[in-house]
Amino acid sequence: MSSASRFLTPHAQSLPPTVPFVGPENLERAQGHRFKARLGANESGFGPSPAAIAAMQQAASENWMYADPESYVLREAIAAFHGVGIDNVVIGEGIDGLLGVTTALTVSPGDVVVTSDGAYPTFNFHVAAHAGRLVKVPYRDDKEDLGRLIDTARREKAKILYVANPDNPMGSWWGADAISEVIAALPAETLFLLDEAYGDTAPAGTLPPLDVENPQVLRYRTFSKAYGLAGARIGYCIGNAALISAFEKMRNHYGINRIGQIAALAALNDQAYLAEAVGRIAAARDRISAIASENGLVALSSATNFVAIDCGRDVEFARSLLKEVLARDVFIRMPGVAPLNRCIRVSTGVDEHLDLFAEALAGALKTVG
Amino acid sequence: MSSASRFLTPHAQSLPPTVPFVGPENLERAQGHRFKARLGANESGFGPSPAAIAAMQQAASENWMYADPESYVLREAIAAFHGVGIDNVVIGEGIDGLLGVTTALTVSPGDVVVTSDGAYPTFNFHVAAHAGRLVKVPYRDDKEDLGRLIDTARREKAKILYVANPDNPMGSWWGADAISEVIAALPAETLFLLDEAYGDTAPAGTLPPLDVENPQVLRYRTFSKAYGLAGARIGYCIGNAALISAFEKMRNHYGINRIGQIAALAALNDQAYLAEAVGRIAAARDRISAIASENGLVALSSATNFVAIDCGRDVEFARSLLKEVLARDVFIRMPGVAPLNRCIRVSTGVDEHLDLFAEALAGALKTVG
Repeated sequence: MSSASRFLTPHAQSLPPTVPFVGPENLERAQGHRFKARLGANESGFGPSPAAIAAMQQAASENWMYADPESYVLREAIAAFHGVGIDNVVIGEGIDGLLGVTTALTVSPGDVVVTSDGAYPTFNFHVAAHAGRLVKVPYRDDKEDLGRLIDTARREKAKILYVANPDNPMGSWWGADAISEVIAALPAETLFLLDEAYGDTAPAGTLPPLDVENPQVLRYRTFSKAYGLAGARIGYCIGNAALISAFEKMRNHYGINRIGQIAALAALNDQAYLAEAVGRIAAARDRISAIASENGLVALSSATNFVAIDCGRDVEFARSLLKEVLARDVFIRMPGVAPLNRCIRVSTGVDEHLDLFAEALAGALKTVG
Repeated sequence: MSSASRFLTPHAQSLPPTVPFVGPENLERAQGHRFKARLGANESGFGPSPAAIAAMQQAASENWMYADPESYVLREAIAAFHGVGIDNVVIGEGIDGLLGVTTALTVSPGDVVVTSDGAYPTFNFHVAAHAGRLVKVPYRDDKEDLGRLIDTARREKAKILYVANPDNPMGSWWGADAISEVIAALPAETLFLLDEAYGDTAPAGTLPPLDVENPQVLRYRTFSKAYGLAGARIGYCIGNAALISAFEKMRNHYGINRIGQIAALAALNDQAYLAEAVGRIAAARDRISAIASENGLVALSSATNFVAIDCGRDVEFARSLLKEVLARDVFIRMPGVAPLNRCIRVSTGVDEHLDLFAEALAGALKTVG
């Protein structure tokens, strides 16, 4: 044990230092120059609403003030938008931040947490921080396997069941009815975390109705995806007031930046722009699918702001392809777990960047063979 | 137990929902209008560097991108500024966020954490979240009692000793030599958290030299105070590389907002503005002291961006005075613990706001009698 690590708790000593997602800036530093197209982090290259940009610019000179630690005005607007009460909404530093507080509040060492194998690794990171025992259910036909997830939750008497719908990294989704069936079938001891980061880009009928009377379900949303404000770090969680108020026991009340709060409010109030962005995202998904086809690959259907492209062979092939696309200055990513990792994952973006991706993919395939 | 709270860990169930600092916006909502002067949160009414404002405005349209989760460029600049390595620096969502991760990494249930009674409550909040046992040492002559703090750490075999220098809420400070003596006297099992949020406004000779070879000391700094960027939520911690790297085990890697990172870098690079702001803060401290004297009260010496004013009587008197100042639309705060709570605490700010405070204090004293 190093002289410094003696100060860590035994559990912290046992954890590896981990960055769940290495940023594109890290790769850029290694290669010595910037990517020409940034299509790997499921950000929105279409950017935020012009109203949000104007609001951020106006707020810059007032950034000497802390944000309201209650995020009252933003929560009020979110609550009104969703038809719930302000006490049903808590804001966090992205969904990541909220998942961190959720696990801190609910996971005791050894508690079972059920998720899909290959699903959002940052969630797993937070579970590990609290010494939860992750039980992972394989994807089935590139979708989260709801039936087996609920069976596993029941068998393991799980403390938490985590599902992303639509899902990352495959872009697949279940209809609201299927999710509602999961909710109805939850064991009494299981809290259901429903990550809807990509809900804004999903077809109508994907998101089940909000039911804040039900204390067993927490719903996670974000301004990072379709709203085009990933840099702002504003996510929110909707749930039963008793559970939402518990976040006050552990959250970093002054963790939310002021400009982000202001930007999120302006973005929420510009639903016309959101609709336009969602349309552009859908068109870009089609374009990515077309690029895949043109290159003899198969794009999976997606309800998100990215597309998983089945490269048709094994992980080594996909990895080589990824490497060659990166070498052509186009940043993309790939799933981390078999059999999902036969795919590469391409975020939607502006035409110019998809042109670069098309060129890079064709070149990469030629090189990899 | 409510049906929702069954999902909380036993420890989380035992914690009260707490907001360590109620924001001025909460009071404004209750009274139905905005304060005319905001002098209670130790923000800098002088604002951030114009270069930082310009950088934020320019970054607004690019806020669709996540910030670099390694904050590499900012860490590199901070490291160069302080003459340490980049591996000695970690960025967090304000010092609050860093204290949260620090306690998560180091405090096991029942571990003793030594602090001063009446010192920073947000730190205590984080210790409580990890079931640490707080042992509080009274202030002595309105200063943190270093001798008794170190004795207590030794007696209790403390896991952590927390000291803020300069201190909040009294604005008092110790010279670097006194702090260095504490460091030299630390028991082997004790990690020393030195909160230097107000270090930029302290007299030369207040901050001991950085020694990143020493694994027992973590130093906390922020862009929220003299740099005038409280809304940006950018703090940093400097320490031994082995301990700093441990933050990767638990921190929210994507918790830092992009505009905040960019603003902090621009602010750091404008030391001329910082010097100017520090000068204005010092002048405003003098002005607050003068206002106190004119009203027959005694301002304490301060090395921070606020001044504690001894109201000369008991907590009820100070509380009544605070209430009357607030009623005159001037936001200030007061310490929460005896005997510190005979004081009110006034942040430095622009002349116009101090004029309003002067008027409000005179009026309040007339009313309270």
